[in-house]
Amino acid sequence: MLPERPDDGMSRRDLLKLIGLTAGSAAMYQAMTSLGYAAESGYRGPIKLEGDPKGASVLILGAGLAGMTAALELRQAGYKVKILEFNSRAGGRNWSLRGGDTYTELGGATQKCEFDQGLYLNPGPWRIPYHHNGLLDYCKRLGVALEPFQQLNHNAFLHSAKAFDGKPQRIREIKTDFQGQTSELLAKAVRKGDLDEAVTKEDQEILLQALRSWGALDKNYAYKAGDLSAEFRGYAKDPGGGLGAEPVPGQIIGLPDILRSRLWLSLMSFTLYEFQTTMFQPVGGMGRIGEAFAKQVGELITYNAKVTRIEQNDKGVTAFYEDAKTPGAVQKASADWCVCTIPLTILSQIDIQVGDAMKAAIAAVPYASSVKIGLQFKRRFWEEDDAIYGGISYTDLPIRQISYPSTDYNSIGKGVLLGCYTWNGPNSYEFTAMTPDERVRRAVDFGAQIHPQYRTEFETGISVAWHRSPFTLGCAGDWTEEARKAHYDDLCQINGRIVLAGEHASYIPAWQEGAILSSLDAISRLHRRVLGG
Amino acid sequence: MLPERPDDGMSRRDLLKLIGLTAGSAAMYQAMTSLGYAAESGYRGPIKLEGDPKGASVLILGAGLAGMTAALELRQAGYKVKILEFNSRAGGRNWSLRGGDTYTELGGATQKCEFDQGLYLNPGPWRIPYHHNGLLDYCKRLGVALEPFQQLNHNAFLHSAKAFDGKPQRIREIKTDFQGQTSELLAKAVRKGDLDEAVTKEDQEILLQALRSWGALDKNYAYKAGDLSAEFRGYAKDPGGGLGAEPVPGQIIGLPDILRSRLWLSLMSFTLYEFQTTMFQPVGGMGRIGEAFAKQVGELITYNAKVTRIEQNDKGVTAFYEDAKTPGAVQKASADWCVCTIPLTILSQIDIQVGDAMKAAIAAVPYASSVKIGLQFKRRFWEEDDAIYGGISYTDLPIRQISYPSTDYNSIGKGVLLGCYTWNGPNSYEFTAMTPDERVRRAVDFGAQIHPQYRTEFETGISVAWHRSPFTLGCAGDWTEEARKAHYDDLCQINGRIVLAGEHASYIPAWQEGAILSSLDAISRLHRRVLGG
Repeated sequence: MLPERPDDGMSRRDLLKLIGLTAGSAAMYQAMTSLGYAAESGYRGPIKLEGDPKGASVLILGAGLAGMTAALELRQAGYKVKILEFNSRAGGRNWSLRGGDTYTELGGATQKCEFDQGLYLNPGPWRIPYHHNGLLDYCKRLGVALEPFQQLNHNAFLHSAKAFDGKPQRIREIKTDFQGQTSELLAKAVRKGDLDEAVTKEDQEILLQALRSWGALDKNYAYKAGDLSAEFRGYAKDPGGGLGAEPVPGQIIGLPDILRSRLWLSLMSFTLYEFQTTMFQPVGGMGRIGEAFAKQVGELITYNAKVTRIEQNDKGVTAFYEDAKTPGAVQKASADWCVCTIPLTILSQIDIQVGDAMKAAIAAVPYASSVKIGLQFKRRFWEEDDAIYGGISYTDLPIRQISYPSTDYNSIGKGVLLGCYTWNGPNSYEFTAMTPDERVRRAVDFGAQIHPQYRTEFETGISVAWHRSPFTLGCAGDWTEEARKAHYDDLCQINGRIVLAGEHASYIPAWQEGAILSSLDAISRLHRRVLGG
Repeated sequence: MLPERPDDGMSRRDLLKLIGLTAGSAAMYQAMTSLGYAAESGYRGPIKLEGDPKGASVLILGAGLAGMTAALELRQAGYKVKILEFNSRAGGRNWSLRGGDTYTELGGATQKCEFDQGLYLNPGPWRIPYHHNGLLDYCKRLGVALEPFQQLNHNAFLHSAKAFDGKPQRIREIKTDFQGQTSELLAKAVRKGDLDEAVTKEDQEILLQALRSWGALDKNYAYKAGDLSAEFRGYAKDPGGGLGAEPVPGQIIGLPDILRSRLWLSLMSFTLYEFQTTMFQPVGGMGRIGEAFAKQVGELITYNAKVTRIEQNDKGVTAFYEDAKTPGAVQKASADWCVCTIPLTILSQIDIQVGDAMKAAIAAVPYASSVKIGLQFKRRFWEEDDAIYGGISYTDLPIRQISYPSTDYNSIGKGVLLGCYTWNGPNSYEFTAMTPDERVRRAVDFGAQIHPQYRTEFETGISVAWHRSPFTLGCAGDWTEEARKAHYDDLCQINGRIVLAGEHASYIPAWQEGAILSSLDAISRLHRRVLGG
């Protein structure tokens, strides 16, 4: 947005490079934003792999987003590419379960999805931040239509079994009353002079005006039940039309009640950079992205290929694999190079010929535990009865979240809720330990505490407990800071003729963007290696 | 959601009625929400006009949403209905300007809309709150598909020509830094003991935890540049994948700079009940609603009918009208009853035979001034360059707002921005006074201060200055509290055989819901009058 070359003759980019050289890259990036450059994304537009690989071949292990990104771009650059994939479908964790699909988890339990046509559960990723530029660009290039995903719905619920007699509270009321009453407290402290050392008198004047606006305070800097606060928190009786249509404000919820309810714990879920508007989901289910990739590179994929061993020497790489459904006969696939996107949970159990540092890195990353349960209901009661259109209700019940579909709003007919979404913690392990039937039954029981309509409207459900997923044995790489410091670079370095990629090899674990950026970085380095000898 | 009859034998509704009788309706509504009832909406589901009107006829003046709602429901109830409409189209302020449309404003200037196919400007209403139940129900019944309207986009801009050297700031940075630093100040006051009288020691402990969570404070209750605040405000360099992918947090914006910039003034636009998630817009333009109504009642409408006089006696009502395009010959239309939805700006200039109280009410309501300008650009640079997908940037420039389309996200091709949206104030009058060409030119000039891409990407624009709209002479009823107290009920009472309806006869002025609820209330009372004699 700014001219490249200001009057002094030194370009801004030159200046930035200088800052980078003298003060380090962190200082450079901070200077960039001060100079008006957009934040630097890990994605810098479509990758350009220039130079002729002269017929070099690459074996890609895993047809998830990382593997298919590598396949698409390497083939485009002139490589001979093939992919081995454990599942009988492409996409990996990019996946939508639809009516007619079946899923067999570790332990052998098979579920058949009985959802009506057009309804689905995204067992894995389900939302796309607007700053995941790589993923968005692939959606654009591959023709995947997007629609907004609602993270924050002010009219959804915050619920604690231990607060407000177990009655769910509207997010808008908790949030507005918290914001109002904390603003009132701060205004009080400012006016008493308690913050004279921290804020100048002149700024105090403006701060008081700002708190009045931000907190919906009255002219005495008080937050009270009344017309003003109702304009933010909503009404007991909404304004109407014609005679007798005057609105009635509701009571406010006192700060002590909010504080002790702990419902404020969930408010941060709406302000995180990763969850900020505008988020997206593909029209028709997250799986549309994997399907779009597979349309491009599907012919390169060997499905049902369970890799059991990976060897390399100075000539090339060989992967040994069996048929995942009828194991026994060992087959092999060889290439000059290998991009391995197999999740570390699985890879750590495979005999792979890499150096000790990479082996240690592969073993160093635990995987997050997560359970998702999709529930189909006869009607969209959350919209019809509760005026909740999309968004998420948070609860301290073991189901943790209920997410309402961000599509087909205001329509007549059935709908599928995400009726449970756990992330690590005891609830994940509890649900993982149950049979699929029990998971669904429990999700309905718990959910009925928030939406009693569950009892009469529930039809069918399906669950994915990620620690029982045969192709990932967990949800996503769950790096600690210490593990990252010790092992991350070793995980990402090209080892002989093998390079790893996937969300686990990124600073955006558990997000599809991490898989894509990791893959682009890995193949860039691999390509340079190939060209450079 | 709660059982109707608790153990004590008295039903909750009986209890509420008792509260209503003894303590007044406000207390009753407040008790209702405390007892777990949803807030009362002005809309109670599809209207039921029971009883035979025995062939009574109703003349409806105006084919906007109020008029067409009345027509639809009265015809359904057995009335003979006809509508006179000034424009050559139905919908009134429910309206989308599309390529090929023309619009002639007061003074004679005619604009032809040159937008590409599929692109549009909604000159009037453009967003639907989720609690506008009447409008949503008509959308459902009439088959109008909805999609989310983005009000808050954290990555859009707040801009002041007088702050930050005129450089637009990301909403997420201003909002997060304001929230963080005010939380830090409050935590400081709490820890110093300054609020010991206002908050118990026990609650202070929880409050400090809550402020840490809400404000992204570190363990010393400080809000600082770093990894923690970056998780909320975003990064100078986003996290990436592979090697060298570590994120870099940006600097924070100091509270004094935020306060003096006045950018906090716009933050309340995202927390108002009327603007809270999830908002909607019809797929294809707001005009789809008027079009869907017209599909039902279009055969009842006489277009281009400019009403000049309205008479009534104890037998019926007669409206005199001329052809709006070729005035002169006076025609008339008569019926037993009349629902008049003509905006008060126009109605106050028409000779209408009603009592003095209603006449005074008709004259008592000024109309808001508003200007909207739609600008078509060659490419969606706000998405491609600035990662702004939908939402609104606020500015203190005369254009006040830039709103990005809430549709066709991440697509290749052209797009139409709302390049100016004023509401009252001098900016409305300035733009209203300009020629249409000048308005567009100025909007492009101003907007280029925020998006320099305007200069090269602009193609064509169109404007509607509502005080020059021949069919409304203003944007919407702009009641003062005093005027409402003095005149509102007189405006809404049935006067002889005439009843008024429209957003101006509601507590939700300027919103389509006001028009619909006002209309439903008016025809309910009219129907009772007809049946009761």
